[in-house]
Amino acid sequence: MSPAPGLPGVERGYIIPIGGAEDHVEKPVVLERFARLCGGAEAVVIIIPTASRRKEAGARYVQTFERLGVGEAVSIPLRKRADCQRTNYLDALGRATGIFLTGGSQLRLSTILGGTPIARRIRRRNAEGVHIAGTSAGAAIMPEHMIAAGKSGPTPRPAMVTLAPGLGLTNSLIIDQHFRQRDRLGRLLAAVSYNPFLIGVGLDEDTALFLGPDGVFEVVGSGVVTVVDPSALQHSSMSSAQLTDPVTLIGLTLHILTRGARYNTVTRQASLR
Amino acid sequence: MSPAPGLPGVERGYIIPIGGAEDHVEKPVVLERFARLCGGAEAVVIIIPTASRRKEAGARYVQTFERLGVGEAVSIPLRKRADCQRTNYLDALGRATGIFLTGGSQLRLSTILGGTPIARRIRRRNAEGVHIAGTSAGAAIMPEHMIAAGKSGPTPRPAMVTLAPGLGLTNSLIIDQHFRQRDRLGRLLAAVSYNPFLIGVGLDEDTALFLGPDGVFEVVGSGVVTVVDPSALQHSSMSSAQLTDPVTLIGLTLHILTRGARYNTVTRQASLR
Repeated sequence: MSPAPGLPGVERGYIIPIGGAEDHVEKPVVLERFARLCGGAEAVVIIIPTASRRKEAGARYVQTFERLGVGEAVSIPLRKRADCQRTNYLDALGRATGIFLTGGSQLRLSTILGGTPIARRIRRRNAEGVHIAGTSAGAAIMPEHMIAAGKSGPTPRPAMVTLAPGLGLTNSLIIDQHFRQRDRLGRLLAAVSYNPFLIGVGLDEDTALFLGPDGVFEVVGSGVVTVVDPSALQHSSMSSAQLTDPVTLIGLTLHILTRGARYNTVTRQASLR
Repeated sequence: MSPAPGLPGVERGYIIPIGGAEDHVEKPVVLERFARLCGGAEAVVIIIPTASRRKEAGARYVQTFERLGVGEAVSIPLRKRADCQRTNYLDALGRATGIFLTGGSQLRLSTILGGTPIARRIRRRNAEGVHIAGTSAGAAIMPEHMIAAGKSGPTPRPAMVTLAPGLGLTNSLIIDQHFRQRDRLGRLLAAVSYNPFLIGVGLDEDTALFLGPDGVFEVVGSGVVTVVDPSALQHSSMSSAQLTDPVTLIGLTLHILTRGARYNTVTRQASLR
Protein backbone atom coordinates (compact mmCIF):
# COMPACT_ATOMS: atom_id res chain seq x y z
CA MET A 1 0.00 0.00 0.00
CA SER A 2 1.22 3.53 -0.65
CA PRO A 3 0.71 6.81 1.23
CA ALA A 4 -2.84 8.19 1.25
CA PRO A 5 -3.27 10.90 -1.41
CA GLY A 6 -2.34 14.41 -0.33
CA LEU A 7 -5.08 16.93 0.47
CA PRO A 8 -5.14 20.40 -1.11
CA GLY A 9 -3.66 23.02 1.21
CA VAL A 10 -2.83 20.46 3.92
CA GLU A 11 0.75 19.58 4.80
CA ARG A 12 1.39 15.87 5.35
CA GLY A 13 2.56 14.91 8.86
CA TYR A 14 6.10 13.82 9.68
CA ILE A 15 7.15 10.18 9.65
CA ILE A 16 9.57 9.31 12.45
CA PRO A 17 11.10 5.82 12.46
CA ILE A 18 13.29 5.15 15.53
CA GLY A 19 15.95 2.42 15.71
CA GLY A 20 14.69 0.99 19.03
CA ALA A 21 15.87 1.33 22.65
CA GLU A 22 15.39 5.11 22.63
CA ASP A 23 16.15 6.89 25.90
CA HIS A 24 13.03 7.52 28.04
CA VAL A 25 14.68 9.12 31.04
CA GLU A 26 18.20 10.53 30.88
CA LYS A 27 18.30 12.35 27.53
CA PRO A 28 15.04 11.50 25.78
CA VAL A 29 15.87 13.72 22.77
CA VAL A 30 13.94 11.67 20.22
CA LEU A 31 10.68 11.33 22.19
CA GLU A 32 10.96 14.94 23.39
CA ARG A 33 11.27 16.21 19.84
CA PHE A 34 8.29 14.08 18.77
CA ALA A 35 6.17 15.36 21.68
CA ARG A 36 7.05 18.96 20.79
CA LEU A 37 6.30 18.41 17.11
CA CYS A 38 2.83 17.02 18.00
CA GLY A 39 1.97 20.19 19.92
CA GLY A 40 3.49 19.76 23.42
CA ALA A 41 0.86 20.70 25.98
CA GLU A 42 -1.75 20.67 23.19
CA ALA A 43 -0.70 17.28 21.83
CA VAL A 44 -2.95 14.21 21.73
CA VAL A 45 -0.67 11.20 21.28
CA ILE A 46 -2.34 7.84 20.57
CA ILE A 47 -0.14 4.83 21.29
CA ILE A 48 -0.55 1.53 19.41
CA PRO A 49 1.13 -1.24 21.44
CA THR A 50 0.08 -4.06 19.08
CA ALA A 51 3.63 -5.14 18.16
CA SER A 52 4.34 -6.09 21.76
CA ARG A 53 3.02 -9.09 23.69
CA ARG A 54 3.81 -7.31 26.96
CA LYS A 55 0.73 -5.85 28.62
CA GLU A 56 2.59 -2.84 30.01
CA ALA A 57 4.01 -1.74 26.61
CA GLY A 58 1.35 0.91 26.08
CA ALA A 59 1.33 2.17 29.68
CA ARG A 60 5.09 2.75 29.62
CA TYR A 61 4.76 5.19 26.70
CA VAL A 62 1.71 6.88 28.24
CA GLN A 63 3.85 7.53 31.33
CA THR A 64 6.82 8.82 29.32
CA PHE A 65 4.75 11.12 27.12
CA GLU A 66 2.91 12.48 30.17
CA ARG A 67 6.25 13.16 31.83
CA LEU A 68 7.33 14.96 28.64
CA GLY A 69 4.30 17.23 29.04
CA VAL A 70 1.94 16.24 26.23
CA GLY A 71 -1.70 17.23 26.68
CA GLU A 72 -3.03 13.70 26.43
CA ALA A 73 -1.48 10.27 25.87
CA VAL A 74 -3.73 7.24 25.37
CA SER A 75 -2.91 3.64 24.49
CA ILE A 76 -5.41 1.75 22.30
CA PRO A 77 -4.94 -2.01 22.83
CA LEU A 78 -5.52 -3.50 19.37
CA ARG A 79 -4.95 -7.19 20.11
CA LYS A 80 -6.87 -8.89 17.29
CA ARG A 81 -8.19 -8.04 13.83
CA ALA A 82 -11.74 -7.47 15.11
CA ASP A 83 -10.40 -4.69 17.40
CA CYS A 84 -9.34 -2.82 14.26
CA GLN A 85 -13.00 -2.29 13.29
CA ARG A 86 -14.04 -0.62 16.57
CA THR A 87 -15.28 2.93 16.25
CA ASN A 88 -13.97 4.09 19.63
CA TYR A 89 -10.42 3.26 18.50
CA LEU A 90 -10.99 4.83 15.08
CA ASP A 91 -12.35 7.94 16.82
CA ALA A 92 -9.27 8.09 19.05
CA LEU A 93 -7.09 8.25 15.93
CA GLY A 94 -9.41 10.94 14.62
CA ARG A 95 -8.48 13.16 17.60
CA ALA A 96 -4.74 12.45 17.45
CA THR A 97 -2.06 15.01 16.68
CA GLY A 98 0.51 12.21 16.90
CA ILE A 99 0.47 8.40 16.65
CA PHE A 100 3.15 6.18 18.20
CA LEU A 101 3.80 2.51 17.33
CA THR A 102 5.73 0.58 19.99
CA GLY A 103 8.35 -2.12 19.40
CA GLY A 104 7.82 -5.89 19.41
CA SER A 105 7.16 -7.92 16.27
CA GLN A 106 6.45 -6.16 12.97
CA LEU A 107 4.58 -9.28 11.81
CA ARG A 108 2.15 -8.88 14.72
CA LEU A 109 1.49 -5.36 13.43
CA SER A 110 1.07 -6.39 9.79
CA THR A 111 -1.07 -9.47 10.49
CA ILE A 112 -3.38 -7.67 12.95
CA LEU A 113 -3.61 -4.20 11.33
CA GLY A 114 -3.12 -5.08 7.63
CA GLY A 115 -6.15 -4.36 5.44
CA THR A 116 -8.28 -3.05 8.35
CA PRO A 117 -9.94 0.36 8.86
CA ILE A 118 -7.27 1.20 11.45
CA ALA A 119 -4.47 0.83 8.87
CA ARG A 120 -6.36 3.03 6.41
CA ARG A 121 -7.09 5.58 9.15
CA ILE A 122 -3.40 5.84 10.08
CA ARG A 123 -2.41 6.53 6.44
CA ARG A 124 -5.26 9.01 6.06
CA ARG A 125 -4.40 10.85 9.29
CA ASN A 126 -0.80 11.20 8.14
CA ALA A 127 -2.03 12.83 4.90
CA GLU A 128 -4.13 15.13 7.13
CA GLY A 129 -1.03 16.34 8.98
CA VAL A 130 -0.74 13.92 11.91
CA HIS A 131 2.82 12.92 12.81
CA ILE A 132 3.55 9.20 13.10
CA ALA A 133 6.46 7.73 15.03
CA GLY A 134 7.42 4.11 15.57
CA THR A 135 10.28 2.39 17.32
CA SER A 136 11.95 -0.88 16.30
CA ALA A 137 9.09 -3.05 14.90
CA GLY A 138 7.04 0.16 14.81
CA ALA A 139 9.71 1.69 12.53
CA ALA A 140 10.10 -1.39 10.32
CA ILE A 141 6.37 -1.52 9.49
CA MET A 142 6.18 2.09 8.26
CA PRO A 143 7.18 1.74 4.58
CA GLU A 144 5.43 0.04 1.69
CA HIS A 145 8.04 -2.74 1.85
CA MET A 146 9.16 -3.91 5.28
CA ILE A 147 11.97 -6.12 6.52
CA ALA A 148 9.98 -8.81 8.36
CA ALA A 149 12.89 -10.92 9.58
CA GLY A 150 16.47 -11.81 8.76
CA LYS A 151 19.96 -12.79 9.84
CA SER A 152 22.92 -10.78 11.14
CA GLY A 153 26.16 -10.17 9.31
CA PRO A 154 27.81 -7.65 7.01
CA THR A 155 27.60 -9.54 3.67
CA PRO A 156 24.35 -9.61 1.67
CA ARG A 157 23.01 -13.08 0.82
CA PRO A 158 19.54 -13.78 -0.63
CA ALA A 159 18.36 -15.97 2.26
CA MET A 160 19.26 -13.46 4.97
CA VAL A 161 16.24 -11.21 4.65
CA THR A 162 12.46 -11.74 4.52
CA LEU A 163 10.37 -8.93 3.07
CA ALA A 164 6.64 -8.40 3.58
CA PRO A 165 4.17 -5.63 2.82
CA GLY A 166 4.24 -2.85 5.41
CA LEU A 167 1.87 -0.04 6.38
CA GLY A 168 2.69 2.16 3.37
CA LEU A 169 3.43 5.53 4.99
CA THR A 170 6.37 5.99 2.60
CA ASN A 171 7.36 4.24 -0.61
CA SER A 172 10.86 5.56 -1.04
CA LEU A 173 12.58 4.00 1.99
CA ILE A 174 13.09 0.53 3.42
CA ILE A 175 14.00 0.64 7.11
CA ASP A 176 16.11 -1.56 9.37
CA GLN A 177 16.65 -0.97 13.10
CA HIS A 178 18.99 -1.92 15.97
CA PHE A 179 21.37 -1.50 13.05
CA ARG A 180 24.92 -1.52 14.42
CA GLN A 181 23.84 -3.25 17.62
CA ARG A 182 22.66 -6.31 15.66
CA ASP A 183 25.07 -6.10 12.68
CA ARG A 184 22.44 -5.72 9.98
CA LEU A 185 24.27 -4.16 7.03
CA GLY A 186 24.09 -7.42 5.07
CA ARG A 187 20.33 -7.79 5.35
CA LEU A 188 19.73 -4.14 4.43
CA LEU A 189 21.94 -4.56 1.33
CA ALA A 190 20.09 -7.77 0.44
CA ALA A 191 16.74 -5.99 0.79
CA VAL A 192 17.84 -3.15 -1.48
CA SER A 193 19.37 -5.45 -4.09
CA TYR A 194 16.07 -7.23 -4.83
CA ASN A 195 14.76 -4.12 -6.54
CA PRO A 196 17.11 -1.15 -6.54
CA PHE A 197 14.47 1.57 -6.46
CA LEU A 198 14.30 1.72 -2.67
CA ILE A 199 16.64 3.75 -0.47
CA GLY A 200 17.88 1.54 2.37
CA VAL A 201 18.01 3.16 5.81
CA GLY A 202 19.64 1.51 8.84
CA LEU A 203 18.80 3.11 12.18
CA ASP A 204 20.97 2.63 15.24
CA GLU A 205 19.33 2.37 18.65
CA ASP A 206 18.30 5.67 20.27
CA THR A 207 18.40 7.25 16.80
CA ALA A 208 15.58 8.48 14.59
CA LEU A 209 14.96 10.23 11.35
CA PHE A 210 12.35 12.97 11.13
CA LEU A 211 11.05 12.75 7.55
CA GLY A 212 9.14 15.90 6.62
CA PRO A 213 6.45 16.52 4.01
CA ASP A 214 9.14 17.87 1.63
CA GLY A 215 10.84 14.44 1.55
CA VAL A 216 13.85 15.66 3.56
CA PHE A 217 14.80 13.92 6.79
CA GLU A 218 16.97 15.04 9.68
CA VAL A 219 18.85 12.68 11.98
CA VAL A 220 18.08 12.98 15.71
CA GLY A 221 19.59 10.95 18.56
CA SER A 222 22.83 9.49 19.83
CA GLY A 223 23.69 7.03 17.05
CA VAL A 224 24.09 6.88 13.30
CA VAL A 225 21.77 6.54 10.31
CA THR A 226 23.24 4.47 7.46
CA VAL A 227 21.84 5.31 4.02
CA VAL A 228 22.30 2.91 1.07
CA ASP A 229 21.25 4.53 -2.21
CA PRO A 230 21.17 2.16 -5.21
CA SER A 231 20.29 4.79 -7.84
CA ALA A 232 23.71 4.51 -9.52
CA LEU A 233 23.86 0.72 -9.15
CA GLN A 234 25.38 -0.90 -12.23
CA HIS A 235 24.84 -4.53 -11.30
CA SER A 236 23.06 -6.72 -8.73
CA SER A 237 23.58 -10.50 -8.89
CA MET A 238 20.48 -11.20 -6.79
CA SER A 239 18.70 -12.96 -9.68
CA SER A 240 21.45 -15.56 -10.14
CA ALA A 241 22.87 -15.90 -6.58
CA GLN A 242 22.26 -19.11 -4.64
CA LEU A 243 20.36 -18.68 -1.34
CA THR A 244 23.45 -18.50 0.86
CA ASP A 245 25.87 -17.00 -1.69
CA PRO A 246 27.20 -13.48 -1.24
CA VAL A 247 25.50 -11.05 -3.66
CA THR A 248 27.58 -8.86 -6.00
CA LEU A 249 26.55 -5.18 -5.89
CA ILE A 250 28.47 -2.66 -8.03
CA GLY A 251 28.00 1.08 -7.68
CA LEU A 252 26.07 1.67 -4.44
CA THR A 253 26.21 5.07 -2.76
CA LEU A 254 26.69 5.02 1.03
CA HIS A 255 26.16 7.79 3.60
CA ILE A 256 26.82 7.63 7.34
CA LEU A 257 24.82 10.40 9.00
CA THR A 258 24.88 11.65 12.58
CA ARG A 259 22.55 14.03 14.42
CA GLY A 260 21.71 17.19 12.58
CA ALA A 261 22.65 15.77 9.17
CA ARG A 262 19.95 15.81 6.50
CA TYR A 263 19.05 13.67 3.53
CA ASN A 264 16.75 14.56 0.67
CA THR A 265 14.91 11.42 -0.45
CA VAL A 266 13.79 13.12 -3.68
CA THR A 267 17.14 14.43 -4.97
CA ARG A 268 19.03 11.75 -3.00
CA GLN A 269 21.52 14.31 -1.66
CA ALA A 270 22.93 14.26 1.87
CA SER A 271 24.02 17.44 3.63
CA LEU A 272 25.29 18.73 6.95
CA ARG A 273 22.99 20.75 9.11
CA MET B 1 6.42 1.65 -5.92
CA SER B 2 2.80 2.35 -6.74
CA PRO B 3 1.03 3.17 -10.00
CA ALA B 4 1.89 6.50 -11.64
CA PRO B 5 -0.71 9.16 -10.82
CA GLY B 6 -3.70 9.29 -13.15
CA LEU B 7 -3.96 12.05 -15.74
CA PRO B 8 -7.08 14.21 -16.07
CA GLY B 9 -9.34 12.96 -18.86
CA VAL B 10 -7.07 10.02 -19.70
CA GLU B 11 -8.12 6.44 -19.07
CA ARG B 12 -5.42 4.22 -17.58
CA GLY B 13 -4.35 1.26 -19.76
CA TYR B 14 -5.24 -2.35 -18.97
CA ILE B 15 -2.95 -4.58 -16.94
CA ILE B 16 -2.86 -8.16 -18.22
CA PRO B 17 -0.95 -10.74 -16.17
CA ILE B 18 -0.83 -14.18 -17.83
CA GLY B 19 -0.10 -17.44 -15.98
CA GLY B 20 2.61 -18.57 -18.41
CA ALA B 21 2.63 -21.09 -21.29
CA GLU B 22 -0.06 -19.22 -23.20
CA ASP B 23 -0.99 -20.66 -26.57
CA HIS B 24 0.80 -18.98 -29.51
CA VAL B 25 -0.57 -21.07 -32.36
CA GLU B 26 -3.70 -23.21 -31.94
CA LYS B 27 -6.08 -21.00 -29.96
CA PRO B 28 -4.07 -17.93 -28.97
CA VAL B 29 -7.08 -16.29 -27.27
CA VAL B 30 -5.06 -14.36 -24.69
CA LEU B 31 -2.46 -12.87 -27.04
CA GLU B 32 -5.13 -12.23 -29.69
CA ARG B 33 -7.27 -10.29 -27.24
CA PHE B 34 -4.22 -8.28 -26.12
CA ALA B 35 -3.28 -7.49 -29.76
CA ARG B 36 -6.84 -6.34 -30.49
CA LEU B 37 -6.97 -4.23 -27.31
CA CYS B 38 -3.73 -2.47 -28.35
CA GLY B 39 -5.21 -1.46 -31.68
CA GLY B 40 -4.79 -4.47 -34.01
CA ALA B 41 -3.40 -3.26 -37.32
CA GLU B 42 -2.66 0.12 -35.67
CA ALA B 43 -0.94 -1.39 -32.60
CA VAL B 44 2.69 -0.77 -31.69
CA VAL B 45 3.69 -3.55 -29.29
CA ILE B 46 7.06 -3.21 -27.54
CA ILE B 47 8.41 -6.47 -26.12
CA ILE B 48 10.74 -6.54 -23.09
CA PRO B 49 12.53 -9.94 -23.03
CA THR B 50 14.69 -9.09 -19.99
CA ALA B 51 13.33 -11.87 -17.75
CA SER B 52 14.66 -14.51 -20.13
CA ARG B 53 18.27 -15.54 -20.69
CA ARG B 54 17.31 -17.01 -24.07
CA LYS B 55 18.31 -14.78 -26.97
CA GLU B 56 15.28 -15.74 -29.05
CA ALA B 57 12.70 -14.84 -26.35
CA GLY B 58 11.95 -11.45 -27.88
CA ALA B 59 11.93 -12.65 -31.49
CA ARG B 60 9.39 -15.35 -30.72
CA TYR B 61 6.86 -12.75 -29.52
CA VAL B 62 7.65 -10.42 -32.44
CA GLN B 63 6.77 -13.31 -34.75
CA THR B 64 3.57 -14.20 -32.87
CA PHE B 65 2.30 -10.62 -32.69
CA GLU B 66 3.08 -10.08 -36.37
CA ARG B 67 1.12 -13.22 -37.21
CA LEU B 68 -1.75 -11.86 -35.09
CA GLY B 69 -1.73 -8.77 -37.31
CA VAL B 70 -0.41 -5.97 -35.11
CA GLY B 71 0.96 -2.93 -36.95
CA GLU B 72 4.41 -3.14 -35.42
CA ALA B 73 6.10 -5.45 -32.90
CA VAL B 74 9.60 -4.63 -31.66
CA SER B 75 11.74 -6.28 -28.98
CA ILE B 76 14.03 -4.01 -26.92
CA PRO B 77 16.86 -6.10 -25.45
CA LEU B 78 17.43 -4.60 -22.00
CA ARG B 79 20.22 -6.85 -20.71
CA LYS B 80 21.88 -4.66 -18.06
CA ARG B 81 21.01 -1.64 -15.91
CA ALA B 82 22.87 0.78 -18.23
CA ASP B 83 20.55 -0.27 -21.10
CA CYS B 84 17.65 1.11 -19.06
CA GLN B 85 19.01 4.65 -19.49
CA ARG B 86 19.14 4.56 -23.32
CA THR B 87 16.97 7.11 -25.08
CA ASN B 88 16.23 4.91 -28.09
CA TYR B 89 14.59 2.33 -25.79
CA LEU B 90 12.75 5.03 -23.82
CA ASP B 91 11.54 6.49 -27.13
CA ALA B 92 10.31 3.05 -28.24
CA LEU B 93 8.13 2.88 -25.11
CA GLY B 94 6.96 6.40 -25.92
CA ARG B 95 5.51 5.12 -29.23
CA ALA B 96 3.95 1.96 -27.75
CA THR B 97 0.22 1.23 -27.60
CA GLY B 98 1.07 -2.01 -25.77
CA ILE B 99 4.03 -3.34 -23.77
CA PHE B 100 4.71 -7.06 -23.29
CA LEU B 101 7.01 -8.60 -20.63
CA THR B 102 8.16 -12.14 -21.43
CA GLY B 103 8.68 -14.97 -18.96
CA GLY B 104 11.94 -16.06 -17.33
CA SER B 105 13.06 -14.84 -13.90
CA GLN B 106 11.18 -12.03 -12.16
CA LEU B 107 14.36 -11.23 -10.20
CA ARG B 108 16.17 -10.53 -13.48
CA LEU B 109 13.42 -8.03 -14.25
CA SER B 110 13.49 -6.37 -10.82
CA THR B 111 17.30 -6.22 -10.52
CA ILE B 112 17.82 -4.86 -14.07
CA LEU B 113 14.79 -2.55 -14.41
CA GLY B 114 14.21 -1.53 -10.76
CA GLY B 115 14.72 2.17 -10.06
CA THR B 116 15.66 2.99 -13.70
CA PRO B 117 14.04 5.40 -16.20
CA ILE B 118 12.59 2.38 -18.06
CA ALA B 119 10.63 1.25 -14.96
CA ARG B 120 9.29 4.80 -14.46
CA ARG B 121 8.42 5.07 -18.15
CA ILE B 122 6.43 1.80 -18.06
CA ARG B 123 4.36 3.04 -15.07
CA ARG B 124 3.87 6.44 -16.71
CA ARG B 125 2.82 4.93 -20.06
CA ASN B 126 0.24 2.79 -18.28
CA ALA B 127 -1.23 5.94 -16.68
CA GLU B 128 -1.28 7.43 -20.21
CA GLY B 129 -3.45 4.59 -21.49
CA VAL B 130 -0.92 2.02 -22.72
CA HIS B 131 -1.87 -1.61 -22.05
CA ILE B 132 0.72 -3.77 -20.33
CA ALA B 133 0.79 -7.56 -20.47
CA GLY B 134 3.27 -9.98 -18.95
CA THR B 135 3.51 -13.73 -18.83
CA SER B 136 4.87 -15.87 -15.95
CA ALA B 137 7.78 -13.79 -14.54
CA GLY B 138 6.38 -10.88 -16.54
CA ALA B 139 3.08 -11.30 -14.63
CA ALA B 140 4.70 -11.76 -11.21
CA ILE B 141 6.65 -8.48 -11.47
CA MET B 142 3.59 -6.32 -12.18
CA PRO B 143 2.31 -5.51 -8.65
CA GLU B 144 3.87 -3.43 -5.89
CA HIS B 145 4.65 -6.66 -4.01
CA MET B 146 5.86 -9.64 -6.02
CA ILE B 147 6.38 -13.30 -5.27
CA ALA B 148 10.07 -13.66 -6.08
CA ALA B 149 10.46 -17.37 -5.32
CA GLY B 150 8.95 -20.16 -3.25
CA LYS B 151 8.09 -23.79 -2.76
CA SER B 152 5.21 -25.95 -4.01
CA GLY B 153 2.43 -27.41 -1.89
CA PRO B 154 -1.08 -26.62 -0.72
CA THR B 155 -0.37 -25.62 2.92
CA PRO B 156 0.96 -22.13 3.76
CA ARG B 157 4.21 -22.03 5.76
CA PRO B 158 6.29 -18.89 6.39
CA ALA B 159 9.45 -20.20 4.67
CA MET B 160 7.72 -21.22 1.46
CA VAL B 161 7.52 -17.79 -0.15
CA THR B 162 9.99 -14.96 -0.82
CA LEU B 163 8.55 -11.52 -1.48
CA ALA B 164 10.33 -8.61 -3.16
CA PRO B 165 9.31 -5.20 -4.50
CA GLY B 166 7.79 -5.40 -7.97
CA LEU B 167 7.15 -2.88 -10.76
CA GLY B 168 4.16 -1.23 -9.05
CA LEU B 169 1.53 -1.27 -11.81
CA THR B 170 -1.11 -2.26 -9.23
CA ASN B 171 -1.13 -2.22 -5.45
CA SER B 172 -4.23 -4.26 -4.77
CA LEU B 173 -3.14 -7.67 -6.11
CA ILE B 174 -0.31 -10.11 -5.53
CA ILE B 175 0.09 -12.53 -8.44
CA ASP B 176 1.24 -16.12 -8.72
CA GLN B 177 1.48 -18.07 -11.98
CA HIS B 178 1.69 -21.67 -13.31
CA PHE B 179 -0.73 -21.98 -10.42
CA ARG B 180 -2.32 -25.43 -10.63
CA GLN B 181 0.49 -26.81 -12.77
CA ARG B 182 3.03 -26.14 -9.99
CA ASP B 183 0.73 -26.55 -6.95
CA ARG B 184 1.17 -23.04 -5.57
CA LEU B 185 -1.86 -22.46 -3.34
CA GLY B 186 0.29 -22.67 -0.19
CA ARG B 187 2.73 -20.01 -1.26
CA LEU B 188 -0.05 -17.66 -2.38
CA LEU B 189 -1.78 -18.09 1.00
CA ALA B 190 1.53 -17.47 2.78
CA ALA B 191 2.10 -14.30 0.74
CA VAL B 192 -1.37 -12.98 1.61
CA SER B 193 -1.11 -13.85 5.29
CA TYR B 194 1.93 -11.59 5.87
CA ASN B 195 -0.24 -8.51 5.48
CA PRO B 196 -3.88 -9.21 4.69
CA PHE B 197 -4.54 -6.08 2.62
CA LEU B 198 -3.55 -7.70 -0.66
CA ILE B 199 -5.85 -9.79 -2.85
CA GLY B 200 -4.03 -12.98 -3.85
CA VAL B 201 -4.48 -14.07 -7.45
CA GLY B 202 -3.27 -17.45 -8.78
CA LEU B 203 -3.17 -17.74 -12.57
CA ASP B 204 -3.18 -21.10 -14.33
CA GLU B 205 -1.15 -21.52 -17.50
CA ASP B 206 -2.75 -20.18 -20.70
CA THR B 207 -4.99 -18.00 -18.51
CA ALA B 208 -4.97 -14.24 -17.99
CA LEU B 209 -6.86 -11.53 -16.29
CA PHE B 210 -7.63 -8.28 -18.10
CA LEU B 211 -7.70 -5.64 -15.34
CA GLY B 212 -9.38 -2.46 -16.58
CA PRO B 213 -9.09 1.15 -15.40
CA ASP B 214 -12.27 0.68 -13.31
CA GLY B 215 -10.53 -1.97 -11.16
CA VAL B 216 -12.60 -4.82 -12.62
CA PHE B 217 -10.90 -7.79 -14.25
CA GLU B 218 -12.21 -10.41 -16.63
CA VAL B 219 -10.79 -13.94 -16.91
CA VAL B 220 -9.59 -14.96 -20.39
CA GLY B 221 -8.08 -18.32 -21.42
CA SER B 222 -8.40 -22.05 -20.93
CA GLY B 223 -7.66 -22.36 -17.18
CA VAL B 224 -8.78 -20.96 -13.88
CA VAL B 225 -8.02 -17.85 -11.83
CA THR B 226 -7.97 -18.47 -8.07
CA VAL B 227 -8.76 -15.40 -5.94
CA VAL B 228 -7.92 -15.30 -2.21
CA ASP B 229 -9.50 -12.29 -0.50
CA PRO B 230 -8.40 -11.73 3.11
CA SER B 231 -10.68 -8.76 3.84
CA ALA B 232 -12.82 -10.77 6.30
CA LEU B 233 -9.81 -12.55 7.82
CA GLN B 234 -10.19 -12.92 11.58
CA HIS B 235 -6.79 -14.37 12.37
CA SER B 236 -3.39 -15.06 10.79
CA SER B 237 -0.74 -16.88 12.83
CA MET B 238 2.10 -15.70 10.58
CA SER B 239 3.68 -13.62 13.36
CA SER B 240 4.09 -16.60 15.70
CA ALA B 241 4.54 -19.54 13.27
CA GLN B 242 7.93 -21.23 12.99
CA LEU B 243 9.52 -21.12 9.52
CA THR B 244 8.26 -24.53 8.41
CA ASP B 245 5.04 -24.65 10.49
CA PRO B 246 1.65 -24.52 8.79
CA VAL B 247 0.03 -21.08 9.22
CA THR B 248 -3.48 -20.75 10.70
CA LEU B 249 -5.78 -18.54 8.61
CA ILE B 250 -9.40 -18.04 9.72
CA GLY B 251 -11.99 -16.39 7.52
CA LEU B 252 -10.51 -16.15 4.01
CA THR B 253 -12.82 -15.72 1.03
CA LEU B 254 -12.02 -17.91 -2.00
CA HIS B 255 -13.23 -17.62 -5.62
CA ILE B 256 -12.47 -19.99 -8.50
CA LEU B 257 -13.10 -18.11 -11.74
CA THR B 258 -13.17 -19.36 -15.31
CA ARG B 259 -13.26 -17.47 -18.63
CA GLY B 260 -15.78 -14.69 -18.79
CA ALA B 261 -16.08 -14.38 -15.00
CA ARG B 262 -15.34 -10.97 -13.51
CA TYR B 263 -13.94 -9.69 -10.24
CA ASN B 264 -14.14 -6.16 -8.90
CA THR B 265 -10.94 -5.41 -6.96
CA VAL B 266 -12.52 -2.33 -5.36
CA THR B 267 -15.75 -3.83 -4.01
CA ARG B 268 -14.17 -7.34 -3.87
CA GLN B 269 -17.21 -8.90 -5.55
CA ALA B 270 -17.00 -11.72 -8.09
CA SER B 271 -19.65 -12.16 -10.78
CA LEU B 272 -20.45 -14.24 -13.83
CA ARG B 273 -20.18 -12.67 -17.25
